[in-house]
Amino acid sequence: MSRFFSDELNSLSPYTPGEQPQDKKYLKLNTNESPFAPSNEVIKALNTSKIELLRLYPDPECTLLRKTAAKRFSLSEENVTAGNGSDENLAFAIRAFCSKDKQLAFPDITYGFYSVWAKLFGIPAKQIPLTDDFKINIEEYFNLNCTIVIANPNAPTGISLSVDDIEKIVVNNPDGVVIIDEAYVDFGAESCVPLINKYDNLLVVQTFSKSRSLAGARLGLAFGSKELISDINRVRYSFNPYNINRLTLLAGQAALDDEEYFSYCTQEICKAREWTAEELKKLGFTLTQSKTNFLFAKHCEKHSRDIYRLLREKGVLVRRWDAPRIENYLRITVGTAEDMKKFIEILKSCLEEL
Amino acid sequence: MSRFFSDELNSLSPYTPGEQPQDKKYLKLNTNESPFAPSNEVIKALNTSKIELLRLYPDPECTLLRKTAAKRFSLSEENVTAGNGSDENLAFAIRAFCSKDKQLAFPDITYGFYSVWAKLFGIPAKQIPLTDDFKINIEEYFNLNCTIVIANPNAPTGISLSVDDIEKIVVNNPDGVVIIDEAYVDFGAESCVPLINKYDNLLVVQTFSKSRSLAGARLGLAFGSKELISDINRVRYSFNPYNINRLTLLAGQAALDDEEYFSYCTQEICKAREWTAEELKKLGFTLTQSKTNFLFAKHCEKHSRDIYRLLREKGVLVRRWDAPRIENYLRITVGTAEDMKKFIEILKSCLEEL
Repeated sequence: MSRFFSDELNSLSPYTPGEQPQDKKYLKLNTNESPFAPSNEVIKALNTSKIELLRLYPDPECTLLRKTAAKRFSLSEENVTAGNGSDENLAFAIRAFCSKDKQLAFPDITYGFYSVWAKLFGIPAKQIPLTDDFKINIEEYFNLNCTIVIANPNAPTGISLSVDDIEKIVVNNPDGVVIIDEAYVDFGAESCVPLINKYDNLLVVQTFSKSRSLAGARLGLAFGSKELISDINRVRYSFNPYNINRLTLLAGQAALDDEEYFSYCTQEICKAREWTAEELKKLGFTLTQSKTNFLFAKHCEKHSRDIYRLLREKGVLVRRWDAPRIENYLRITVGTAEDMKKFIEILKSCLEEL
Repeated sequence: MSRFFSDELNSLSPYTPGEQPQDKKYLKLNTNESPFAPSNEVIKALNTSKIELLRLYPDPECTLLRKTAAKRFSLSEENVTAGNGSDENLAFAIRAFCSKDKQLAFPDITYGFYSVWAKLFGIPAKQIPLTDDFKINIEEYFNLNCTIVIANPNAPTGISLSVDDIEKIVVNNPDGVVIIDEAYVDFGAESCVPLINKYDNLLVVQTFSKSRSLAGARLGLAFGSKELISDINRVRYSFNPYNINRLTLLAGQAALDDEEYFSYCTQEICKAREWTAEELKKLGFTLTQSKTNFLFAKHCEKHSRDIYRLLREKGVLVRRWDAPRIENYLRITVGTAEDMKKFIEILKSCLEEL
């Protein structure tokens, strides 16, 4: 830290992304990326003539992408905005809808970035503990007079709430925005996007990084009432209006248009997830009921720290946190059927050695 | 605005980017983009195999791009960080080095975003008037006890300071960071990057949007002491660590490596600028001494508002602001020699009609 760093940010503790090591080739099951390449339509869309046009700024209104997304999700274009990954949309939303007097509420175990954004923006955070089995007790979220952010399904637990339950949270917080982070919703959970036209205090955020195989393109969408979207754009235009690359806008459109490939990829991952879950149980793991492209698992005997380390030595990356309540868990991204077969083989040899 | 919008941002007035109309094809001289396509090396770098890898997150440390940039600018990798356009680096720097007690100082006429970021982050702004001929009186920037941001060359005036003058500002503000925004430096001004190793309070920001023909890719670099760069990364990792697209990282590297094409493009633009300036003088315009890829010009008789409107009707976009002191000026991006010949022809017909 330099002597110039703002004292307003003294307590800022940045987010730690999953490792992206460059030293050798790993079976990379640590950052919830898709094992499938982007749609062929994406590859066709990013042709030489489009690369040449990189000399021009992108459309800051993301008109064509928003049109495609609006059609895909049966909304109006005014109900959609786009960000440089879901992270940017979440950051803009938290900045737009929170203040010193309107704190941000979220579960104690969830995506680690929510608390970082709150710190960055000087917003008090209210962490609400999950139950002992990592569930959200929805009644604890009623009438909070807060802005609320809930990942659904939650990460790293993988557990989802029903749309009915989320609707109850939305209805019981008429004076606060409820942000639903649907990064993982396409792997078996229910989306709240159909509720957008019904509530003025619901914001839903989705990403292209998981189910649409575009983590490297950086693209996310936010859905909400015209007014909420306009608020987010007010922050966006006060931070970085040209926030999305021209090629990313095209990639996003092409990916949204290829519904068939999207269905194929998500179904394959769900199948591989269920197979892997069964195998893990046979090896002595207990698991949460994941509706995501990852599994959250704890071994009956061996500590996750040791399994993690040995897996890494053998060329497999998964993720774990030295955090209360979850320190003995591993989060394992679901790859292809073949990836997971290989993973289970290597895991077996780790458990034998430990 | 929704009823949920944070009252902390009530006075926020977003930046207005130059228009990007989709209604017809214009001779687009309004947002200082390059008239030249990106380097052929960029086009080669973004091949199908690289597009397929969009399924994976980008390297948040931007290792290879920083390595290339460090070599190109004779610095160490620790002196470089990358942003989603210069705008993001500037925003991160202002957030990192300002606070309620450390205000942000900048000229009254300059890039309009500096004051927007100050508002967004709740930082008081100190605007220092340019002289009557739009120059910076460097002594007014000595010992301010502020963080200072100066665009060099300045926008929209196009006028540059010498490195000696900037060094005096840096030396005379030992307790404040001096941010030099070199968005336009490659068109004839002197860069302060060689001073980076000499001062711990100098941050230099450059962009790929102008001289490297990559406005649509969104990429900027920041150069400073290891400590300043680490501070910016602390903010970056608290906002959006995966801030740069995989393809953009590759495009940036390829563009930096193709020095020959970079020299060709910047020289062509400087030549076209000088030719256009002479033609404008013949038509009754007075101009500032631009060291950028734009001209800042005022007609002796006709109001810029009328010229702007008629040019637009005839398919030419330039930029103007309804702002004190500069409301009678036009900012004209310099395109190819051919673009500028066409521009002068159309401008002549406008002046005849007005």
